[in-house]
Order: sequence, then C-alpha cells, then structure tokens
Amino acid sequence: MSSPCIISVAITGSLPQKANNPAVPITPTEQIESTHEAYEAGATLVHLHVRNDDGTTSSDPERFALVQEGIRKHCPGMITQFSTGGRSGSGAERGGMLHLKPDMASLATGSVNFGAIVYANSPQLIDDLAQRMLDNDIKPEIEAFDLSMIFNTAKLVERGLLKSPVHLQFVTSIPNAIPADREVLEIMIKQFKRVCPDGTWTAAGIGKYQLILNQWALELGGHVRT
Amino acid sequence: MSSPCIISVAITGSLPQKANNPAVPITPTEQIESTHEAYEAGATLVHLHVRNDDGTTSSDPERFALVQEGIRKHCPGMITQFSTGGRSGSGAERGGMLHLKPDMASLATGSVNFGAIVYANSPQLIDDLAQRMLDNDIKPEIEAFDLSMIFNTAKLVERGLLKSPVHLQFVTSIPNAIPADREVLEIMIKQFKRVCPDGTWTAAGIGKYQLILNQWALELGGHVRT
Ligand SMILES: [Zn+2]
Ligand SMILES: [Zn+2]
Ligand SMILES: [Zn+2]
Ligand SMILES: [Zn+2]
Repeated sequence: MSSPCIISVAITGSLPQKANNPAVPITPTEQIESTHEAYEAGATLVHLHVRNDDGTTSSDPERFALVQEGIRKHCPGMITQFSTGGRSGSGAERGGMLHLKPDMASLATGSVNFGAIVYANSPQLIDDLAQRMLDNDIKPEIEAFDLSMIFNTAKLVERGLLKSPVHLQFVTSIPNAIPADREVLEIMIKQFKRVCPDGTWTAAGIGKYQLILNQWALELGGHVRT
Repeated sequence: MSSPCIISVAITGSLPQKANNPAVPITPTEQIESTHEAYEAGATLVHLHVRNDDGTTSSDPERFALVQEGIRKHCPGMITQFSTGGRSGSGAERGGMLHLKPDMASLATGSVNFGAIVYANSPQLIDDLAQRMLDNDIKPEIEAFDLSMIFNTAKLVERGLLKSPVHLQFVTSIPNAIPADREVLEIMIKQFKRVCPDGTWTAAGIGKYQLILNQWALELGGHVRT
C-alpha cells in the first residue's frame, strides 16, 4: 500500500531576518514569489507567517490577505496554511485572520517552554481557535511540542471541536520542548496512532534538524516539510 | 536486591478548602498535627503548601517557618519538602522561603496547561529556583507534568544546576497535562532512566488516581505518596 507524500514548505518562520539570510521573504511580493518557487519545485502546501515591512512578525489580516491572493494566482491548487503561532500576537489576535478561510491553519494544543519564553496556549484560547477554524471550514494542523498535546488533541476530537481524521505535526528540537530524537519521535507517533488511529502526521525540526526529521518521517510513514 | 520505599504525604495541595473536607489542615497548628499523624502512620517525607487563615494559598515565609519548626519538634527526622508550585505566588516569590533550608523543595522543569490555566515556569525562573536550592543545600523534587520536562531535567544536570542523582515525580492526571495511563507512565520512566540513569522517582495522581498511581509505582520500582 502506498499513499502520496505531501511536501510542505515553510517559506519563513516568525523570527529570521534579512540580516540572518538575505533570501528570507518579508514583503508580500517576496513571500508570494518564494512560495511560487517552492510550488514549481513540488511543494503542495505552504505554511505562512506574515511580517511588517521592518521584518518584525505580524498577524495583520491585510498582510495575510495579500499573500493569500498572490498565492492563489501564482500557485493554483496549492494548500495555504496560516500560522496562529504565539509570536504573531497574543490571545484572540492570533486568530484574527481566520475569516480569510485559508485551507488550513496551525493550532498548538497545549503550553510549553519554547526557547527562553513560555509559549502559552491556554485551554480557552485553544477552544476559541478550534471553534473559529470549524466555523470557517479550515482544517487545523495540530502542532504538538510535547506528549500531553497529543492527548489534548484526542479530547478536542471527543468534544467535537476537531474533526476526525486530524492532521498533526510533531515539532521537535525547539530548546526546552521535545528534542530531535528518533526514540522520542517513535513514542509520539505510537501515542498519536493510539488515540487518533486515522490521523495523518508530519514532523518538523529547526535548522540542521529539519533534514534529519524529514528522513525519519519518510521512514516512519509521515509527510515532510522543508 | 531491595531498597526501602519512601512514603511521602502531601497533607494538602494549594486548593482544597474546609468546605470541601473539614479535615483539610489550614492553620500552622493543624498542618503540624496532620503531619504528625502521618508520621506516626509511617510517612517519612511531608510535602507542604501553606495557607492564609482564610484558606487561600500562600507562599509567606513566616507561615512556612512556623510549620517547619513544629514538624521538626513533633516529627524528628521527617524530611520536609516545600512546594514552590505556581499557585503559591508568581515568579521569584515562589522561592521566597528557600532561605529556611527545608530538606527538599519542588521544582517543575517546564510549562504546561494545568486545568484551565497555563502553569508557567519560564526557563529563567527554573534556573533561579534551581540555583537557590543549590545555594541553600536543598534537594529538589523535580515535578514532571510532561515528557519534555524529563529532558529539561537532564540538561539542568549537565549545566550543573541540579546535582545527580536527581529525584523526580511524574505528575499525572492533571487535566491537560499527561493522563493517568500505565503506558504513558512506563514511557516517562523509561525516558527518565535513559537520561538520568541513577535517578529515583515517585508518581502522583489527583483524587481517585492517587491509589492507582501508588500501585503502579510499587510495581515499577518507584516511591509512593499519599
Ligand atoms: Zn510556523
Ligand atoms: Zn510568481
Ligand atoms: Zn504540591
Ligand atoms: Zn504533635
């Protein structure tokens, strides 16, 4: 049995700046063209963080709308996924662009230390974001930074706030969250399959870990991201 | 090979009130006598949360000092462990009683959702509390509410902020943190033994789960708490 592997592209996260790498796409035009290149190279899903002109992170719905419109024009059929990550604003602001109805949006199902900060996703915020995704017919990509987030995902399905089958990303190698470790990844996959048997998954690592995670994901039956 | 099992008693957490159960010890005198009863019944370690007279939670060093003094008098040789838990104040305040040099103090090594709230333990706060425990010759009881906290514990040992062997408690069944689940407990123990091979451990559950966790802990080689 074989099923197609989806290649996602995260053209940028919320942090890297031109000073780190001149290729980091910041303006809507740059983000659209960066996505277009990945699309031509075979990516079928784009994970988006928008930025202000000075490169700082943003959750401005107008920015998201511009990038979304450009991608629809340049990359027909590509799946767009908006980040609702914690660096893009606080509380409900993080879902302020969901009325744009991207195909997908990210949803972290718990709190964890993330580098030097506490990445706070209160149960109330998680419920609110999940409800807005349901209302706008957006498929969530669950972001699991730790083991409890897998069980929290299953509880959201039970409560009707997430539709089955869920799609989940194991996010590894963020300092102070789960490490990029093969044994830990296998544990996470096994527990996910136990509580969400029909779920699909992918795995992410930061920096040098991404390629390692891609290899493990391909070996273990997941999708991949760049 | 056999080694003695340590029975800890948590005479109260930070939440239960007289209205929930008239036996909940609130005043220093009540807490001392409640500990004394457990001591006579075989407990060798007491985990302490102090309260204001109205029953609300407190991290007042004077309260801790009163209870500590009474326990030393009534329960010779009993190990005292102060809670630095999040409901007992915010930030550095949570360690404001560590100069009293209890034998042990609790230390959560990450952040997690805890019921309806975000139990925030930033990396900076964790480092500060660990350093104060080192300075005061206090043995931490690591509180692991999720898998990443085990890896964070090992990193604190590597950085010299925790002394080996560490003692760790798996805290299960808090809604939105890890569930009371035998398979999950075995995963946590295995990963803990992998990164802290000489560590000792215990396991906690809330309400009806505590007895189940005690049974599993005895079967799997841990210490127990009531
Ligand atoms: Zn992202
Ligand atoms: Zn183009
Ligand atoms: Zn406690
Ligand atoms: Zn007495």
